[in-house]
Amino acid sequence: MFVNSMPRYEILSEDAMDVLDRGWRRILTELGIEFLLPEAVELFRAAGQTVEGEHLVKLDPEFVLEQVAKAPREFELQARNPERSVHIGGDHMVFSAVYGPPFVREGADRRDATMADFENFVKLSQSFPELDSPGGTIVEPNDTPLDSRHLDMVYALQTLSDKPYMGSVISGPNAVDTIKMGEILFGGAEALQRAPVSISLINCNSPLRWDDRMLSAMVEYNRANQAVVMTPFLLMGAMSPVSIPATLVQQIAEALSGIALTQLVQPGCPVVFGSFLSNTDMQSGSPSFGTPESAIGLLCTGQIARHFGLPFRSGGGLTASQTADAQGAYEALMTLLPTFLAGTNFVMHSAGWLEGGLVSSYEKFIVDIELLRMLRHEFTPLEIDEASLAFDAHQEVGQGGHFLGAAHTLERFRTCFYRPLLSSTENFDRWTRNGGQDAAERAGKIWRDTLDAYEPPPIDDGIRSELREFVARRRAELGD
Amino acid sequence: MFVNSMPRYEILSEDAMDVLDRGWRRILTELGIEFLLPEAVELFRAAGQTVEGEHLVKLDPEFVLEQVAKAPREFELQARNPERSVHIGGDHMVFSAVYGPPFVREGADRRDATMADFENFVKLSQSFPELDSPGGTIVEPNDTPLDSRHLDMVYALQTLSDKPYMGSVISGPNAVDTIKMGEILFGGAEALQRAPVSISLINCNSPLRWDDRMLSAMVEYNRANQAVVMTPFLLMGAMSPVSIPATLVQQIAEALSGIALTQLVQPGCPVVFGSFLSNTDMQSGSPSFGTPESAIGLLCTGQIARHFGLPFRSGGGLTASQTADAQGAYEALMTLLPTFLAGTNFVMHSAGWLEGGLVSSYEKFIVDIELLRMLRHEFTPLEIDEASLAFDAHQEVGQGGHFLGAAHTLERFRTCFYRPLLSSTENFDRWTRNGGQDAAERAGKIWRDTLDAYEPPPIDDGIRSELREFVARRRAELGD
Repeated sequence: MFVNSMPRYEILSEDAMDVLDRGWRRILTELGIEFLLPEAVELFRAAGQTVEGEHLVKLDPEFVLEQVAKAPREFELQARNPERSVHIGGDHMVFSAVYGPPFVREGADRRDATMADFENFVKLSQSFPELDSPGGTIVEPNDTPLDSRHLDMVYALQTLSDKPYMGSVISGPNAVDTIKMGEILFGGAEALQRAPVSISLINCNSPLRWDDRMLSAMVEYNRANQAVVMTPFLLMGAMSPVSIPATLVQQIAEALSGIALTQLVQPGCPVVFGSFLSNTDMQSGSPSFGTPESAIGLLCTGQIARHFGLPFRSGGGLTASQTADAQGAYEALMTLLPTFLAGTNFVMHSAGWLEGGLVSSYEKFIVDIELLRMLRHEFTPLEIDEASLAFDAHQEVGQGGHFLGAAHTLERFRTCFYRPLLSSTENFDRWTRNGGQDAAERAGKIWRDTLDAYEPPPIDDGIRSELREFVARRRAELGD
Repeated sequence: MFVNSMPRYEILSEDAMDVLDRGWRRILTELGIEFLLPEAVELFRAAGQTVEGEHLVKLDPEFVLEQVAKAPREFELQARNPERSVHIGGDHMVFSAVYGPPFVREGADRRDATMADFENFVKLSQSFPELDSPGGTIVEPNDTPLDSRHLDMVYALQTLSDKPYMGSVISGPNAVDTIKMGEILFGGAEALQRAPVSISLINCNSPLRWDDRMLSAMVEYNRANQAVVMTPFLLMGAMSPVSIPATLVQQIAEALSGIALTQLVQPGCPVVFGSFLSNTDMQSGSPSFGTPESAIGLLCTGQIARHFGLPFRSGGGLTASQTADAQGAYEALMTLLPTFLAGTNFVMHSAGWLEGGLVSSYEKFIVDIELLRMLRHEFTPLEIDEASLAFDAHQEVGQGGHFLGAAHTLERFRTCFYRPLLSSTENFDRWTRNGGQDAAERAGKIWRDTLDAYEPPPIDDGIRSELREFVARRRAELGD
């Protein structure tokens, strides 16, 4: 887990924050939020909020802030290997892999994702220390039965990796399955009450609506003390206005309304201020990623979440590119570098995202790992003291010499600089002799070698059997 | 010209600055700097500095700071088209193209650069408003005679572009030629005394040595009031110790010693604190670019140059990659984004740099232009006021709708977001139908179309004839 001790890059003035503050309050008060889950509406009604019709709740901003204040500012997220448990909040940054794509790309081959791909990506996530978590739906395993697919995914996450994982959010019952499997893995409900063992993504059906299926899952997770990430899903121009400030106030209104609900369900339960904010390409009508607008939104979101005392999720290696080419790389970094500048606490889609999130790419996964490695190095504070000035090296080398053979260099050359995983500094002749491979081709070798070297983390045989039995029983119950 | 009104990202504490301050003073006092130009040594001797042997000058830090204080904090750099004149210093950022490569890459073809390539890159630099200057030796035109090559380059820069340009630094006489051609273009020496019409790169022969040829050129430029960029050339591990703080104090010592010299030659002459700072790959022995170390060095350099009240040069789209692939893109952005965070005043190598600076790449040029366009957009302050909150749009769309057809969207959709030059948001089917081209392939079409559409900026026939006559006469004198 990376601790970002570098300064935050904050671009909102106090005046700007005041304008935004008035904005989200007005949305909650005058327009309100729809909650499609009746239980949610009843909770708000019982707490004195104004309900109109079946679903619309007009919220008092002060009431919302009171609820939000009950959420922990920081919390632990347990892994079955305690050394891989992480801390969500503060200066900590936690990275998980791409989430959601139905397709995979492997070199020039783009195809439907399978369970084998899912397992591969979990193994790759387990193998690279730059990822704290494989995430959840790292790809959509299209060759498994739809109704019981979540069981296969959670089982793979729990057994092929010993890092924290994300849970199913398709429905309340699916969330319960995730929780039960967590209880098996961690030794009972008490373990889950001590600290969450899963973190799950609850998306808003933006604008201004939370749907019933995801809220059903949320309620289950809240009651079981499992973390949720309440995330407005905002592609400006489609789900929000074509204005960053308007989108930011919508994001605050949506996120805070959802977070308030979590605290009505279970005061003090762990929750994250979520952000998924980019813009529509108004020419093609397609989503854009890695844009200047998304970078600005990300920097602002960090500042806003800190203002409300909440850990926040944003960022990732996002791109609209079809391949792990120059566009794929610069769009990913155009989001990942601000992800670090903003000190993002939980980062989904950190590795493997391609084609606007439709594709999990093996090669892009490696490109993103390289970016994460570089950024972790870059955002490690420089130690500047007398010794670091290496005056003896200057004395030794003097004017016009070189430092390659200096004592100071020889003592440090193995560890003094960042060592790349993917990047090449080979000269042209050597690069040509070695096949003249570009970064995407070299990435192909790296992920294959990494899979070959993968070793499953040990797991107790009894626990594994119990998980298998649970999956088999539930699959039968679900009729798959 | 871009004005960067966003906050600077500064990572050095006051304590760290104090340590660095002690460091450069110690280098100048105890080790000293070699100046291989006798005239330079005499100037320092006459000013009371300690000379040892023929070339070594031990400098009093307070004396150096007194000289540095004579340099202007900001200055104008004239273009022959006054609308393209730029301001060096303050919040202004001025971008010029790649400088120095002997080779070009055009798609899969890598070959010796020619004068035709030189002209092509000047035309491309003229065509894109993201570049304020084509720079100088945008490629090394290997098919022209060596001794008179500088005349051909300056002539091409002056006539194919109406933006400011960089001068020859091979020798004093070459600098004089550049100055004379500037006098022809701008109407006499008085015009040059009013404000510089060229800016030239004076590299330090690091560590701690300024060579005689570049200093000869520097002296000519100083006397003619032409701007110079005094640049320590630091690949850590080779030209400086394998420590960022040690390299920073060396950079300060070298840059300030050179800048002090410029002010001894001509008090008040325009000068820029230069930085070219990256690290050696200690495994391959080759230079690395776009590294975490270079990004950190860049951020620190900005803070240091501001501390001394000097405009500074750093950054660019640097990479060690062989092609305009993912590595080429992420390494470029890993430097270019900090270039903006640091508010760099003069940026060389902003477009086209490839293969550690050995190659000017047509495709990479377009990738870099896209990065500059995105970053200019990203570093434009957000306007946050009541109107920007677009409450009417939220009222119109309400809960669960979409904003694509909202009045607020329809009024703004053409200009609301960044519009890419190179990036594609095409969906997979459309992208495949259109040939399935990656970013580098698409860049190939863009630079060719741009060259096709190029129109030379108008120039007075008399001036052009005079420049031609000057070049012909000097070429004859030089025996080429």
